[in-house]
Amino acid sequence: MRRADPLSSTFAALADPTRRAILARLALGELSVNELAKPFKMSGPAVSKHLKVLERAGLISRGRAAQRRPCRLAPAGLKSIDDWLAGYRRLWADRLDRLDYLSALQAKPGKAVSGSPKPPRSTKG
Amino acid sequence: MRRADPLSSTFAALADPTRRAILARLALGELSVNELAKPFKMSGPAVSKHLKVLERAGLISRGRAAQRRPCRLAPAGLKSIDDWLAGYRRLWADRLDRLDYLSALQAKPGKAVSGSPKPPRSTKG
Repeated sequence: MRRADPLSSTFAALADPTRRAILARLALGELSVNELAKPFKMSGPAVSKHLKVLERAGLISRGRAAQRRPCRLAPAGLKSIDDWLAGYRRLWADRLDRLDYLSALQAKPGKAVSGSPKPPRSTKG
Repeated sequence: MRRADPLSSTFAALADPTRRAILARLALGELSVNELAKPFKMSGPAVSKHLKVLERAGLISRGRAAQRRPCRLAPAGLKSIDDWLAGYRRLWADRLDRLDYLSALQAKPGKAVSGSPKPPRSTKG
Protein backbone atom coordinates (compact mmCIF):
# COMPACT_ATOMS: atom_id res chain seq x y z
CA MET A 1 0.00 0.00 0.00
CA ARG A 2 1.39 3.44 -0.96
CA ARG A 3 1.93 5.82 1.93
CA ALA A 4 -1.11 8.06 2.07
CA ASP A 5 -2.01 11.10 4.15
CA PRO A 6 -3.55 10.14 7.53
CA LEU A 7 -7.14 10.91 6.55
CA SER A 8 -6.85 8.91 3.32
CA SER A 9 -5.41 5.97 5.28
CA THR A 10 -8.34 6.10 7.68
CA PHE A 11 -10.93 6.20 4.89
CA ALA A 12 -9.11 3.37 3.05
CA ALA A 13 -9.05 1.25 6.21
CA LEU A 14 -12.83 1.66 6.56
CA ALA A 15 -13.46 0.66 2.92
CA ASP A 16 -13.66 -3.00 3.89
CA PRO A 17 -16.64 -4.75 5.51
CA THR A 18 -14.45 -7.14 7.54
CA ARG A 19 -12.48 -4.28 9.05
CA ARG A 20 -15.72 -2.44 9.90
CA ALA A 21 -17.02 -5.65 11.51
CA ILE A 22 -13.83 -5.86 13.59
CA LEU A 23 -14.40 -2.29 14.79
CA ALA A 24 -18.03 -3.09 15.64
CA ARG A 25 -16.88 -5.97 17.85
CA LEU A 26 -14.17 -3.87 19.51
CA ALA A 27 -16.79 -1.22 20.29
CA LEU A 28 -18.10 -3.71 22.88
CA GLY A 29 -14.71 -4.18 24.55
CA GLU A 30 -11.10 -5.18 23.96
CA LEU A 31 -10.29 -8.58 22.42
CA SER A 32 -7.22 -10.63 21.56
CA VAL A 33 -6.41 -11.51 17.94
CA ASN A 34 -7.64 -15.08 18.52
CA GLU A 35 -10.90 -13.89 20.05
CA LEU A 36 -11.36 -11.53 17.09
CA ALA A 37 -10.58 -14.26 14.53
CA LYS A 38 -13.21 -16.76 15.77
CA PRO A 39 -16.50 -15.47 14.30
CA PHE A 40 -14.86 -14.47 11.00
CA LYS A 41 -13.59 -17.98 10.23
CA MET A 42 -10.32 -16.35 9.23
CA SER A 43 -6.78 -17.40 10.04
CA GLY A 44 -4.86 -15.50 12.72
CA PRO A 45 -2.48 -14.04 10.10
CA ALA A 46 -5.40 -12.83 7.94
CA VAL A 47 -6.91 -11.05 10.95
CA SER A 48 -3.49 -9.66 11.91
CA LYS A 49 -3.18 -8.11 8.47
CA HIS A 50 -6.52 -6.30 8.88
CA LEU A 51 -5.50 -5.20 12.39
CA LYS A 52 -2.26 -3.68 11.06
CA VAL A 53 -4.26 -1.62 8.54
CA LEU A 54 -6.62 -0.47 11.31
CA GLU A 55 -3.72 0.34 13.66
CA ARG A 56 -1.85 2.37 11.02
CA ALA A 57 -5.10 4.25 10.36
CA GLY A 58 -5.41 5.23 14.04
CA LEU A 59 -8.60 3.19 14.41
CA ILE A 60 -7.36 0.65 16.96
CA SER A 61 -4.50 0.34 19.43
CA ARG A 62 -2.79 -2.78 20.79
CA GLY A 63 -1.98 -3.54 24.41
CA ARG A 64 1.61 -4.20 25.47
CA ALA A 65 0.98 -7.44 27.39
CA ALA A 66 3.48 -9.66 25.54
CA GLN A 67 1.31 -12.73 24.99
CA ARG A 68 -2.18 -11.37 24.55
CA ARG A 69 -1.68 -7.87 23.09
CA PRO A 70 -5.41 -7.08 23.27
CA CYS A 71 -6.89 -4.81 20.59
CA ARG A 72 -9.06 -1.90 21.49
CA LEU A 73 -10.88 0.78 19.55
CA ALA A 74 -8.91 4.05 19.27
CA PRO A 75 -11.44 6.86 18.92
CA ALA A 76 -8.88 9.21 17.27
CA GLY A 77 -9.31 7.74 13.79
CA LEU A 78 -13.10 7.89 13.86
CA LYS A 79 -12.93 11.39 15.33
CA SER A 80 -10.83 12.55 12.35
CA ILE A 81 -13.55 11.31 9.96
CA ASP A 82 -16.21 12.99 12.06
CA ASP A 83 -14.30 16.28 12.05
CA TRP A 84 -13.97 16.11 8.27
CA LEU A 85 -17.70 15.40 7.92
CA ALA A 86 -18.64 18.30 10.19
CA GLY A 87 -18.13 20.84 7.40
CA TYR A 88 -20.61 18.98 5.20
CA ARG A 89 -23.21 18.11 7.79
CA ARG A 90 -24.89 21.50 7.67
CA LEU A 91 -24.89 21.30 3.90
CA TRP A 92 -27.11 18.24 3.69
CA ALA A 93 -29.33 19.46 6.52
CA ASP A 94 -29.86 22.63 4.47
CA ARG A 95 -30.46 20.58 1.34
CA LEU A 96 -33.11 18.47 3.05
CA ASP A 97 -34.75 21.58 4.55
CA ARG A 98 -34.85 23.10 1.08
CA LEU A 99 -36.42 19.97 -0.43
CA ASP A 100 -39.09 20.02 2.30
CA TYR A 101 -39.71 23.68 1.55
CA LEU A 102 -39.95 23.14 -2.21
CA SER A 103 -42.29 20.18 -1.89
CA ALA A 104 -44.48 22.24 0.46
CA LEU A 105 -44.53 25.03 -2.14
CA GLN A 106 -45.50 22.56 -4.86
CA ALA A 107 -48.23 21.08 -2.69
CA LYS A 108 -49.84 24.53 -2.31
CA PRO A 109 -49.22 26.35 -5.61
CA GLY A 110 -49.72 30.12 -5.46
CA LYS A 111 -49.94 30.06 -1.69
CA ALA A 112 -47.38 31.37 0.74
CA VAL A 113 -45.98 28.65 2.95
CA SER A 114 -46.59 29.43 6.59
CA GLY A 115 -45.54 27.70 9.78
CA SER A 116 -43.50 24.54 9.27
CA PRO A 117 -41.64 23.58 7.12
CA LYS A 118 -39.23 26.44 7.71
CA PRO A 119 -37.48 28.19 4.82
CA PRO A 120 -33.94 26.95 4.13
CA ARG A 121 -31.33 28.11 6.59
CA SER A 122 -28.41 30.09 5.19
CA THR A 123 -25.30 28.03 4.36
CA LYS A 124 -23.18 31.03 5.36
CA GLY A 125 -21.86 31.97 8.79
CA MET B 1 -11.92 -1.72 -9.05
CA ARG B 2 -13.72 -4.79 -7.65
CA ARG B 3 -17.42 -4.29 -6.99
CA ALA B 4 -17.76 -3.43 -3.33
CA ASP B 5 -20.74 -2.90 -1.03
CA PRO B 6 -22.05 0.70 -1.20
CA LEU B 7 -20.54 1.82 2.11
CA SER B 8 -17.12 0.40 1.17
CA SER B 9 -17.30 2.20 -2.20
CA THR B 10 -18.07 5.46 -0.45
CA PHE B 11 -15.19 5.09 2.02
CA ALA B 12 -12.84 4.09 -0.83
CA ALA B 13 -13.89 7.13 -2.88
CA LEU B 14 -13.04 9.40 0.06
CA ALA B 15 -9.59 7.80 0.54
CA ASP B 16 -8.05 10.23 -1.94
CA PRO B 17 -7.11 13.87 -1.26
CA THR B 18 -7.94 15.02 -4.82
CA ARG B 19 -11.44 13.56 -4.60
CA ARG B 20 -11.98 15.19 -1.19
CA ALA B 21 -10.77 18.50 -2.70
CA ILE B 22 -13.30 18.09 -5.53
CA LEU B 23 -16.07 17.60 -2.95
CA ALA B 24 -14.91 20.67 -1.02
CA ARG B 25 -15.21 22.78 -4.19
CA LEU B 26 -18.62 21.33 -5.06
CA ALA B 27 -19.81 22.18 -1.55
CA LEU B 28 -19.75 25.81 -2.74
CA GLY B 29 -21.89 25.15 -5.81
CA GLU B 30 -22.16 23.06 -8.98
CA LEU B 31 -19.33 23.12 -11.53
CA SER B 32 -18.59 21.67 -14.97
CA VAL B 33 -15.74 19.19 -15.46
CA ASN B 34 -13.61 21.93 -17.05
CA GLU B 35 -14.24 24.31 -14.18
CA LEU B 36 -13.34 21.55 -11.73
CA ALA B 37 -10.17 20.62 -13.63
CA LYS B 38 -8.63 24.14 -13.63
CA PRO B 39 -7.15 24.53 -10.12
CA PHE B 40 -5.96 20.91 -10.04
CA LYS B 41 -3.75 21.22 -13.15
CA MET B 42 -5.18 17.89 -14.22
CA SER B 43 -6.42 16.80 -17.64
CA GLY B 44 -10.17 16.62 -18.26
CA PRO B 45 -10.01 12.78 -18.51
CA ALA B 46 -8.12 12.53 -15.19
CA VAL B 47 -10.79 14.61 -13.47
CA SER B 48 -13.54 12.60 -15.21
CA LYS B 49 -12.09 9.42 -13.75
CA HIS B 50 -12.26 10.84 -10.23
CA LEU B 51 -15.80 12.08 -10.89
CA LYS B 52 -16.90 8.59 -11.97
CA VAL B 53 -15.60 7.15 -8.68
CA LEU B 54 -17.42 9.86 -6.73
CA GLU B 55 -20.63 9.35 -8.72
CA ARG B 56 -20.60 5.55 -8.23
CA ALA B 57 -20.07 6.18 -4.51
CA GLY B 58 -23.20 8.37 -4.31
CA LEU B 59 -21.12 11.43 -3.44
CA ILE B 60 -21.90 13.54 -6.51
CA SER B 61 -24.52 13.64 -9.24
CA ARG B 62 -24.26 14.97 -12.79
CA GLY B 63 -26.72 17.25 -14.57
CA ARG B 64 -28.39 16.13 -17.79
CA ALA B 65 -27.63 19.24 -19.87
CA ALA B 66 -25.84 17.53 -22.79
CA GLN B 67 -22.87 19.86 -23.15
CA ARG B 68 -22.11 21.02 -19.64
CA ARG B 69 -23.30 18.16 -17.42
CA PRO B 70 -22.57 20.12 -14.22
CA CYS B 71 -21.46 18.19 -11.15
CA ARG B 72 -23.05 18.74 -7.81
CA LEU B 73 -22.59 17.31 -4.36
CA ALA B 74 -25.03 14.48 -3.54
CA PRO B 75 -25.54 14.45 0.22
CA ALA B 76 -26.65 10.77 0.25
CA GLY B 77 -23.09 9.36 0.22
CA LEU B 78 -21.89 11.58 3.05
CA LYS B 79 -25.07 10.87 4.98
CA SER B 80 -24.37 7.11 4.79
CA ILE B 81 -20.92 7.69 6.36
CA ASP B 82 -22.48 9.89 9.02
CA ASP B 83 -25.11 7.26 9.83
CA TRP B 84 -22.39 4.62 10.17
CA LEU B 85 -20.38 6.92 12.48
CA ALA B 86 -23.41 7.65 14.66
CA GLY B 87 -23.06 4.34 16.51
CA TYR B 88 -19.49 5.18 17.47
CA ARG B 89 -19.91 8.84 18.31
CA ARG B 90 -21.21 8.21 21.82
CA LEU B 91 -18.35 5.80 22.35
CA TRP B 92 -15.60 8.35 21.94
CA ALA B 93 -17.55 11.00 23.87
CA ASP B 94 -17.74 8.46 26.72
CA ARG B 95 -14.04 7.67 26.35
CA LEU B 96 -13.08 11.34 26.55
CA ASP B 97 -15.38 11.84 29.57
CA ARG B 98 -13.68 8.91 31.27
CA LEU B 99 -10.20 10.29 30.55
CA ASP B 100 -11.26 13.64 32.06
CA TYR B 101 -12.59 11.80 35.10
CA LEU B 102 -9.42 9.72 35.53
CA SER B 103 -7.11 12.70 35.17
CA ALA B 104 -9.20 14.58 37.73
CA LEU B 105 -8.89 11.59 40.08
CA GLN B 106 -5.13 11.53 39.57
CA ALA B 107 -4.86 15.27 40.17
CA LYS B 108 -6.51 14.85 43.59
CA PRO B 109 -5.34 11.46 44.92
CA GLY B 110 -7.40 10.11 47.78
CA LYS B 111 -10.06 12.76 47.32
CA ALA B 112 -13.56 12.28 45.98
CA VAL B 113 -14.15 14.16 42.74
CA SER B 114 -17.04 16.55 43.11
CA GLY B 115 -18.75 18.83 40.63
CA SER B 116 -17.30 18.77 37.12
CA PRO B 117 -15.84 16.71 35.51
CA LYS B 118 -18.77 14.34 35.60
CA PRO B 119 -18.33 10.57 35.97
CA PRO B 120 -18.42 8.62 32.68
CA ARG B 121 -21.85 8.16 31.17
CA SER B 122 -23.00 4.61 30.62
CA THR B 123 -22.36 3.19 27.13
CA LYS B 124 -25.58 1.19 27.45
CA GLY B 125 -29.09 2.24 26.55
